[in-house]
Amino acid sequence: MSKPVQDKQATVYDIARVAGVSASTVSRILNGSARVAESKRLAVEEAIRELNYRPNLMAQYLKTGQSMTLGVITQYVDSPYSNEMLRGIEHALQGSKYAPLIASGHWNVDEEIERLKLLIDRRVDGIIILTGHVNQQALIDFSQQVPIVATGHTINTERVRTFSINNRLGGYMATRHLLDLGHRQIAHIIGLPDQNDAIERLNGYRQALVSSGVGYDPELVVQGDFAEAGGFNAVKQLVASGKKFTAIFCANDQTCYGAILGLKQCGLRVPEDVSLIGFDDLPFSTFSNPPLTTVRQPIYETGIAMVNTLIGLIEHEEKNIEELPELSIVVRETTMPYSSN
Amino acid sequence: MSKPVQDKQATVYDIARVAGVSASTVSRILNGSARVAESKRLAVEEAIRELNYRPNLMAQYLKTGQSMTLGVITQYVDSPYSNEMLRGIEHALQGSKYAPLIASGHWNVDEEIERLKLLIDRRVDGIIILTGHVNQQALIDFSQQVPIVATGHTINTERVRTFSINNRLGGYMATRHLLDLGHRQIAHIIGLPDQNDAIERLNGYRQALVSSGVGYDPELVVQGDFAEAGGFNAVKQLVASGKKFTAIFCANDQTCYGAILGLKQCGLRVPEDVSLIGFDDLPFSTFSNPPLTTVRQPIYETGIAMVNTLIGLIEHEEKNIEELPELSIVVRETTMPYSSN
Repeated sequence: MSKPVQDKQATVYDIARVAGVSASTVSRILNGSARVAESKRLAVEEAIRELNYRPNLMAQYLKTGQSMTLGVITQYVDSPYSNEMLRGIEHALQGSKYAPLIASGHWNVDEEIERLKLLIDRRVDGIIILTGHVNQQALIDFSQQVPIVATGHTINTERVRTFSINNRLGGYMATRHLLDLGHRQIAHIIGLPDQNDAIERLNGYRQALVSSGVGYDPELVVQGDFAEAGGFNAVKQLVASGKKFTAIFCANDQTCYGAILGLKQCGLRVPEDVSLIGFDDLPFSTFSNPPLTTVRQPIYETGIAMVNTLIGLIEHEEKNIEELPELSIVVRETTMPYSSN
Repeated sequence: MSKPVQDKQATVYDIARVAGVSASTVSRILNGSARVAESKRLAVEEAIRELNYRPNLMAQYLKTGQSMTLGVITQYVDSPYSNEMLRGIEHALQGSKYAPLIASGHWNVDEEIERLKLLIDRRVDGIIILTGHVNQQALIDFSQQVPIVATGHTINTERVRTFSINNRLGGYMATRHLLDLGHRQIAHIIGLPDQNDAIERLNGYRQALVSSGVGYDPELVVQGDFAEAGGFNAVKQLVASGKKFTAIFCANDQTCYGAILGLKQCGLRVPEDVSLIGFDDLPFSTFSNPPLTTVRQPIYETGIAMVNTLIGLIEHEEKNIEELPELSIVVRETTMPYSSN
């Protein structure tokens, strides 16, 4: 690494010029594809050293069709949920031959497709998609080029494997927990509009209320956005509506963080005046003030399982994937029994 | 995208086999490097379609030496600080010709170097490093292969540009804010041990105390880790020590979040019993309970400036980089005037 500074990375044309051979001879040597005169081979190798050319990836790819890289599509780099899954993905890849490359889709189907193409152009050996907006047909189409493992979908083909949780069950469990504590006026802050996980969590909430005989009241349901701001604004709206509520099921933990602050600004204490339950169990939820009662889903563990599944698809051997833990309620300090005082 | 499923991505050998020509002919056509009989060219083009081969990157790279990709080295995918900078980076790249690929170093110098090599192997046109552990010489060495823009360093060469904030000044400003509120027993929770930003913030804290005549008391300084757990444990340690304190300067915002919860568990209220000031002004700090008083640094804006600087280096034209905002104190609800009650 003590060569003179170059203007940019050398190309086969630079190598050809320095070695005094044709570009196609350079390509042949890099590909290992044909017999070439020994003198030419030596000249090319010397030029490669001189120009500090790194042919590894290109040469390896041309020879084997594998780049030892996995592409990962996340939606937002600042989503703590996706980042917990990425942490699992990176953990599973440590010590493996594969390295991850990450790109973001921003919940935009066109951008997600652009990023998928970008990663395929960079010759990744497989792709992991953290939920997102592409549809099943697109997954199947792209899987003709590389195997794909995704969350938030439910299809499974020879080249597409998916992981999903039972969001309706999770919404049911969260609401059931509040009912069991004696709450009857239970509000819900929905996640992103039209997002499937959000719809299913709402369905679980409704089902728990209806099946327990409490009944579903649409006036207790307000829109959030899966982020702090949505939770903050939603509780302000709930309080302003004058509708009475003693507990809230928030569509995710981030919604709860915002709701805690919003309730405080309205003079309501958590959990003394309002009980709150979230969904996810993000690492931060042990440090929120107060620490959060929530539905735990195996985010980190799913990241690990996705990697092992994808490597199995790439290497054509079915790996033994550890079964993921079921959804469970983690009780911390934002819920307490209903009291009429 | 309706071709039969293939086992893996096609290589030049597959194309050569299907087209009935030699692999070096395929390479020559992909490179656009030599005259080739029209019939062979048509056969190769047909094989490329049939095999769904995507030669864009490889062909473009071989022709121009540019891949239109920027590599980004982050340390932890779950660091809200890095993610705020990544958000700025992605924002600046939207609508540009360049796409980002992200890899993580985990504050491990060997891993960081491996990731740098990985990105260079993938032919990125330039690299952004979010702080990290590689030294200046390594930056200079790697910059012979691609231009580099980094935070947390202070060198500037023809091919390396760096951005850094004045951490000592920030530590001074934070402590000065607490002194101005009348606090005299001011504790400090340090960031990561031996990390340069952490050391400089501590130095600023000490300087403010000494220059104001209050004096520096090492018993009021405890180790944290730039994360919630470190802040939580550090306040427990401070309270257990029996040392009196009425305010804390935390090395970053995440440390504050943990400290708020730790103080509450010790029966101390923020800010009535203890004032807290952080460092960063993460987006979440408007939603923490209570919302955080902190030293604002231009994280998002730095991400944007890094991208524009790097593209300027790649394209050999000095871009007009907007001047970054200075450090400033954002007063929210975790600080209040000292009261002897």
